[in-house]
Amino acid sequence: MSIHMQQNDSLNEVISLIAKLPNLGMRSARKISLHLLQNKELLSRLSDALKKTAEDMIFCHICMNIDTCSPCSICASPSRDQSIICVVEGIGDLWALERGGLYNGLYHVLGGTLSAIHGKTPETLNFDQFKKRLQNGTAVKEVIIATNATLDGESTSHYIASLVEALDIKATRIAHGIPMGGELDHMDDGTLKMAFKLRHIF
Amino acid sequence: MSIHMQQNDSLNEVISLIAKLPNLGMRSARKISLHLLQNKELLSRLSDALKKTAEDMIFCHICMNIDTCSPCSICASPSRDQSIICVVEGIGDLWALERGGLYNGLYHVLGGTLSAIHGKTPETLNFDQFKKRLQNGTAVKEVIIATNATLDGESTSHYIASLVEALDIKATRIAHGIPMGGELDHMDDGTLKMAFKLRHIF
Repeated sequence: MSIHMQQNDSLNEVISLIAKLPNLGMRSARKISLHLLQNKELLSRLSDALKKTAEDMIFCHICMNIDTCSPCSICASPSRDQSIICVVEGIGDLWALERGGLYNGLYHVLGGTLSAIHGKTPETLNFDQFKKRLQNGTAVKEVIIATNATLDGESTSHYIASLVEALDIKATRIAHGIPMGGELDHMDDGTLKMAFKLRHIF
Repeated sequence: MSIHMQQNDSLNEVISLIAKLPNLGMRSARKISLHLLQNKELLSRLSDALKKTAEDMIFCHICMNIDTCSPCSICASPSRDQSIICVVEGIGDLWALERGGLYNGLYHVLGGTLSAIHGKTPETLNFDQFKKRLQNGTAVKEVIIATNATLDGESTSHYIASLVEALDIKATRIAHGIPMGGELDHMDDGTLKMAFKLRHIF
């Protein structure tokens, strides 16, 4: 969708590129482009920071996290527990757990979930490297499966568990239930069912 | 909010800059940054397009539209009706009307609305240039006031109307009512009241 002014090819390019970003559509893209053009200092800092970050950041060859070095700072850290690997779908999930500061083991980023509909077979995800890590002697004692609580995330978790257990390594799954602060009245049936099924002694 | 990894200053810079954009928060900013880092071609194209657009685009000294030239292509166009000026709050509003392709006159971009609470007096908006345009002989025959249907937009429309009428020029206001395709049941009381007040003979 053009903005009906023939000279503005570069502006239309900016808008259509921004509209490709996650969660954004044409309306937000126009609003953001306009905001950037009216705040050229912000635009210039953003453009520079993007370039610099793109040059600096690489994928860790062990866990597929993104960092300035490979192995990444988590894989390379002597203070992290090398015997636990937490498997996540994406780097955003890893960031969420790191922000929580609740986990001190290693990660493995799959790059998605298995999905028959979307043609996502184990070969298209980061499973080869995962198997290598598990087969590497007796270093890994536990794999925490932290895929999302979606249909695809659940089926992927079963696949991971079977891989891990076949190597006699403990596979665990993060708990599902009512989120802290959540009210029963606002929960969907699936969550309520899970919360009852996974109930534990007080 | 950092992502708990000491090396990623440039990444944190990107995230916090993106979070400053309209309608975006930290969560969307992290998602967008990650998407860009995983699609370096898109990142590079976006960064280049932003730089180029920032260099190309300037504000029209007549109407405050943004374009590659000043006067802008609308102000400079011989095919547009020079006797009508449509006053809008921002460039985004101008774009919306141009996309509609329903208007062939000129524009005037105010750069906001009057607002006592936010300290927006007439001096902080683009009114000086507007008065000059009106006083320029008998060229302007009508001013269409297209500020938004918000409280501030409405009070600004009254201010504009008084300016315009003091110079014996016709001031009109875009109509308010039920949007096309809208259902009465979904409209707020203010819109319903306006739709009744502004009813016209069928």
